[in-house]
Amino acid sequence: MIGLSSYAGVMESLMNPDPAEEQQPSSPLANSWSLKQESSQNPTPKCVGGFVLVHAGAGYHSESKAKEYKHVCKRACQRAVDRLKAGALAVEAVAAALVELEDSPFTNAGMGSNLNLSGEIECDASIMDGKSLHYGAVGAISGIKNPVLVANRLLIEAQKGKLSAGRIPPCFLVGRGAHDWAVGHGIPPCPSQKMATKFSLSAYKRNKRKMELAEKMDTGHNPAKKRRQSSENENGSGCLDTVGAIVVDLEGNVAAAVSSGGLAMKHPGRVGQAAHYGCGCWAENACNMNPYSTAVSTSGCGEHLIRTMLARECSAAVQSEDAHQALLEAMQNKFISSPFLASEDRVLGGVIVLRCCRCVEAPPSQNIQGILVEFLWSHTTESMCVGYMSTQDSKAKTHISRLPPGTVPGQCLAIEGGVCRLTSVVE
Amino acid sequence: MIGLSSYAGVMESLMNPDPAEEQQPSSPLANSWSLKQESSQNPTPKCVGGFVLVHAGAGYHSESKAKEYKHVCKRACQRAVDRLKAGALAVEAVAAALVELEDSPFTNAGMGSNLNLSGEIECDASIMDGKSLHYGAVGAISGIKNPVLVANRLLIEAQKGKLSAGRIPPCFLVGRGAHDWAVGHGIPPCPSQKMATKFSLSAYKRNKRKMELAEKMDTGHNPAKKRRQSSENENGSGCLDTVGAIVVDLEGNVAAAVSSGGLAMKHPGRVGQAAHYGCGCWAENACNMNPYSTAVSTSGCGEHLIRTMLARECSAAVQSEDAHQALLEAMQNKFISSPFLASEDRVLGGVIVLRCCRCVEAPPSQNIQGILVEFLWSHTTESMCVGYMSTQDSKAKTHISRLPPGTVPGQCLAIEGGVCRLTSVVE
Repeated sequence: MIGLSSYAGVMESLMNPDPAEEQQPSSPLANSWSLKQESSQNPTPKCVGGFVLVHAGAGYHSESKAKEYKHVCKRACQRAVDRLKAGALAVEAVAAALVELEDSPFTNAGMGSNLNLSGEIECDASIMDGKSLHYGAVGAISGIKNPVLVANRLLIEAQKGKLSAGRIPPCFLVGRGAHDWAVGHGIPPCPSQKMATKFSLSAYKRNKRKMELAEKMDTGHNPAKKRRQSSENENGSGCLDTVGAIVVDLEGNVAAAVSSGGLAMKHPGRVGQAAHYGCGCWAENACNMNPYSTAVSTSGCGEHLIRTMLARECSAAVQSEDAHQALLEAMQNKFISSPFLASEDRVLGGVIVLRCCRCVEAPPSQNIQGILVEFLWSHTTESMCVGYMSTQDSKAKTHISRLPPGTVPGQCLAIEGGVCRLTSVVE
Repeated sequence: MIGLSSYAGVMESLMNPDPAEEQQPSSPLANSWSLKQESSQNPTPKCVGGFVLVHAGAGYHSESKAKEYKHVCKRACQRAVDRLKAGALAVEAVAAALVELEDSPFTNAGMGSNLNLSGEIECDASIMDGKSLHYGAVGAISGIKNPVLVANRLLIEAQKGKLSAGRIPPCFLVGRGAHDWAVGHGIPPCPSQKMATKFSLSAYKRNKRKMELAEKMDTGHNPAKKRRQSSENENGSGCLDTVGAIVVDLEGNVAAAVSSGGLAMKHPGRVGQAAHYGCGCWAENACNMNPYSTAVSTSGCGEHLIRTMLARECSAAVQSEDAHQALLEAMQNKFISSPFLASEDRVLGGVIVLRCCRCVEAPPSQNIQGILVEFLWSHTTESMCVGYMSTQDSKAKTHISRLPPGTVPGQCLAIEGGVCRLTSVVE
């Protein structure tokens, strides 16, 4: 397998309060990476800030649908920024972004999720708070419009301590039990048929026909052969558009979340990476061991992301000095060429990553504190749709990153990113 | 928190074909750790071997029940050894050991599992093959006598490659979907009422009364206070007896598995560490990156084991030179003092670990190949029941490891282990 790095840097400058609708990657990230270069360009903002990076999935985004994906990313960024401006911590802002992404009928999460083999919607979602290191997840949950809100509520409840009679609160609930817990905690149920869309229903019928055809064509072959043959076909990087977001707040806390309707035509009860600890999302504030706060959210083929524990691997990787190089190596060595996926011909996934650290403005006498946010996305799928915004921006920037023409999805990768500095006056 | 190491070594010598019923830890592990010391003591066995280490849970094992726990560990070891002698690979042997552990009405897995809040049995189980690095897991599954067989079947099916129409086979199924998949793959259903025992039913009634009493006593207090108060009570390390096993086979492949009925009175749909990738079990054959093959199985409070990803952490830790010291540090720094569990007053869990490497007998002209197996167990719970056996032994050794009197469960640890060498004639 050849690891290809289609690389460019996007610099988010606080000097530009109304950025272009979509800023194409232009300058190498390394050039904008230095704190000193930047600090000389930035005026002193009056208020503390926050930053959000969202994705509407790694998969394939046709030009015709690109506009919709960008729109939903933009709205999700705005939601998170609104919460941050209102004083919310990262974990609350990241949940708000996810609700917007889930509510879009175009994404494979919440409304408009892929249907499973039985024609039902079963969703996975998880959220992690880098400050408390608490985590909440739901798997194969039906009849709830916003699975991320159940995951978030599990996180909140677990932070309150033990239940009656010393029982330990759950961090991961699945299926009917998850649904009932959610409703018992005031999250309204939503009839499943309301969550299906015209698009998801017609995709189900199309997939069903394809499956029946594939199985009919294979009749007579031995099952082992049949499996290998059919693996040559489709499912390249079609409908993998899980959504996610990562946020750093005004206190420097990070949070991450992810939500997915799962693979189309999955077996009922199948749980993907979005509900798997360490696989769907990861957030860890800086501590003695880690100089940087990091947050990661993933998208793609759940089984590949689970078996490589990609979110946690990427989080650990970007603790090293050069975040871009570290992420590139992690995607190549721990994902595309992972020994855990040695038998896979195509390794499909994408990540969004941020890392940040506090830094003091020069001159220090001005009592200005800054947070340097480095953000990256990388994917082995044909495309990945991202959006990002800081609280100083008037609107979000969105971008559909694509593998260079002629490269093979699942064997090559694209990596891009940018940098943003948030500054605040210290009391 | 004070980290206490109650440490002793158990040496499994191939010179002793009929070991004592239970060999008490005696000599320091470091003394029996050297290959050279051993190889001079061992005659050349005629056949290749394998080794199994099982646990019947980290929790509290009363003296009165100790005999039963030891018996089931012994039977589980025998089952794995029988399979190994018949030429099975590690992954098949580890599944056989688990079936025996699940079938015991005394363990909290399969038959006799804890009942949840609704009085139902929902089981978690997973299995990992260090050779293929494939993994299978089921969560919150009801009405299946041996959940590990479903996990194992998922692993086997995933190894066959993609499903029809290029669909990726699942590695993790939960709830009703998992049950239906199992039955569809020839695993017979078992009426839930047959899986409950007199003991589990009476424990349920007792727990239910306790809960009602605790909730009644708390009436009038504010909920936050109520939670903290009740956390002072019980659930110390009562009913955490998840079971597991780790195996190395005659080819030097490792495998690990774990199975659990989960915490008593858990919310329906709650999934614990036994179904969590990296948390319940881990197995990884030696490769370019790792000099040792390692296998780990955990037991204890699921949420603590999930959030610390203890199985994978311990596996990574024992890649360093001194396995005992590395495991001790991992249990202290990555579990008891983990920043992920900073808010927990008691961190409850246990692990069994093995690591092995190939080594050539002296003199090499004899074409004797050997596998050096170092095995360890460690726990922060009051006690942990283990059993181990090699294919050269006529019966298994069992041991109930206990924290020293006066130490506090959840804040201190015990660590013990041994070494075994398997030799084979190279063709």
